[in-house]
Amino acid sequence: MLAGDPRAVARALSLVEDDDPAGASVLRAIFSKTGRARLIGITGPPGAGKSTLVDRLTREIRKEGKTVGVIAVDPSSPFTGGAVLGDRVRMGRHFSDPGVFIRSMATRGNHGGLARTTGDAALILDAAGKDTIIIETVGVGQGEVDIAGTADVSIVVLVPTSGDEVQALKAGVMEIADVFVVNQADRDGADRLVQTIAANQALRTAGPEEWCPPIVKTIATTGEGIMELRAAIARFQAHSAPTLGGRTRKRQEYRLRELLSHRFLQRLERVLPAGELGRVIDRITAREIDPDTAAAELIDRALGTLDRSPVPDPRPE
Amino acid sequence: MLAGDPRAVARALSLVEDDDPAGASVLRAIFSKTGRARLIGITGPPGAGKSTLVDRLTREIRKEGKTVGVIAVDPSSPFTGGAVLGDRVRMGRHFSDPGVFIRSMATRGNHGGLARTTGDAALILDAAGKDTIIIETVGVGQGEVDIAGTADVSIVVLVPTSGDEVQALKAGVMEIADVFVVNQADRDGADRLVQTIAANQALRTAGPEEWCPPIVKTIATTGEGIMELRAAIARFQAHSAPTLGGRTRKRQEYRLRELLSHRFLQRLERVLPAGELGRVIDRITAREIDPDTAAAELIDRALGTLDRSPVPDPRPE
Repeated sequence: MLAGDPRAVARALSLVEDDDPAGASVLRAIFSKTGRARLIGITGPPGAGKSTLVDRLTREIRKEGKTVGVIAVDPSSPFTGGAVLGDRVRMGRHFSDPGVFIRSMATRGNHGGLARTTGDAALILDAAGKDTIIIETVGVGQGEVDIAGTADVSIVVLVPTSGDEVQALKAGVMEIADVFVVNQADRDGADRLVQTIAANQALRTAGPEEWCPPIVKTIATTGEGIMELRAAIARFQAHSAPTLGGRTRKRQEYRLRELLSHRFLQRLERVLPAGELGRVIDRITAREIDPDTAAAELIDRALGTLDRSPVPDPRPE
Repeated sequence: MLAGDPRAVARALSLVEDDDPAGASVLRAIFSKTGRARLIGITGPPGAGKSTLVDRLTREIRKEGKTVGVIAVDPSSPFTGGAVLGDRVRMGRHFSDPGVFIRSMATRGNHGGLARTTGDAALILDAAGKDTIIIETVGVGQGEVDIAGTADVSIVVLVPTSGDEVQALKAGVMEIADVFVVNQADRDGADRLVQTIAANQALRTAGPEEWCPPIVKTIATTGEGIMELRAAIARFQAHSAPTLGGRTRKRQEYRLRELLSHRFLQRLERVLPAGELGRVIDRITAREIDPDTAAAELIDRALGTLDRSPVPDPRPE
């Protein structure tokens, strides 16, 4: 996997996706080999042409001789089975290029674990030697926005909408943008959209040394504007180099919190007598106990009395 | 608040939205008064006309003399400030009707807490005496789909798309539908969309006693089809009455898990020496320790040795 063998990488990705304990072992083993790749997050509403844009951007980055890994969260398929089919369609152009690895993440039933799984997948592609990792999400769900927002560079893709329709984007999406893309820029309303974004930016008080997210017009289907987008990304990377550590740290904090929640719940279920969690849920459903009190009791039982006094660090620094 | 005073309800909602400890106290105090309201989840892609549909459905339910609470998750505003403005626009028609309470939930920065906050808000409206609570989410994020999917009735709204565009919906959205709505049914492609949904349903092997989600055509702007939608909801409610407990229980389980994660992290930060979590994140960022090992160590320190042997139940049943 560390040598970048695509089948080994695919297997490792499946392990973390399935939350298999072997996946956790792989991640522990490779973690010290990670931290080299640059992460690009791309988000925007469904139908904004993100996949095509990612495809074009991948080719542009490949021209520089860099390898690329793509993680597509939410394959935006109306019916199930979209992920696998999506990968095939997406791979198409890069099929014979060993420098590109594309993976759609199945997120079904992945209660709140989206950020963790995506983060793990990025670590695997990082360890497998990919220079740039592009994470594509649909910018409507909070989890999806969070994922894109903790990348080294966050790109928000918008498209001109017809008539009076307001582009449906989650509040908070605009704030994460390091670079804006107005895709399908040949459509009516593209200039109006650029002006709207610019007007919104002007409302925020930005210091002279602060980064003002550029607005890049693209037509992903023809490739127009992709070089400009690549240049804008590079400019932001250069600008943000001194503060890159802060982003990386924020990403690590987010992942650690997710892992803590996840592992604590696993432990709790192991610690409790069989069926106990189910009995507590029954009592909540019967309104015999409220969820907050139940949660506090369960945690108390797991934590014992340790909660009342600070735990001394076994290895003081 | 229990008397349904709108200002008291609004204040309680703000407390849970801000994750204020007083909000948790309110929820503990009112929990035994909840469980009476019926929850309707409505989800679908941005621009599907969900708000208008919710507005029409609210009026239809009001005609039956029932009170309605609406929780709109993700106000789909391209810029910040949309939630408050959205409430005013939404309230418009129901402004003078004390039997309707509408609230948009601000979800910005609400890392993974969306389901918890929405569930808490539903409890407050339930305790405040609302007979029916409609939760509207954008069906693209996983969290948003989960929320709609744990309601007593889940409605998936779709709209005909132009040309070859595939409607961008999260895989997993189709599976949660108890009722499908094809909104903007006067548009080209409406019948094609109905057929596509029906064809997809036929692929699944449904037993004769199993519920086959009806497909209701609506034009929310004119109100066409809303009575049929209301009837379809009532039919599902009658059909699902024997198994309603299972849904309620699933929802309680989901909320308990969220609460356990959330409260455990709060406790952990209190238990650890000041700045310890930050130091661990620094070590992860420096690749001195991997996140999984770090999480295990932190939980070990919190749990002490209790993890190794099952904790006896202090109050055996």
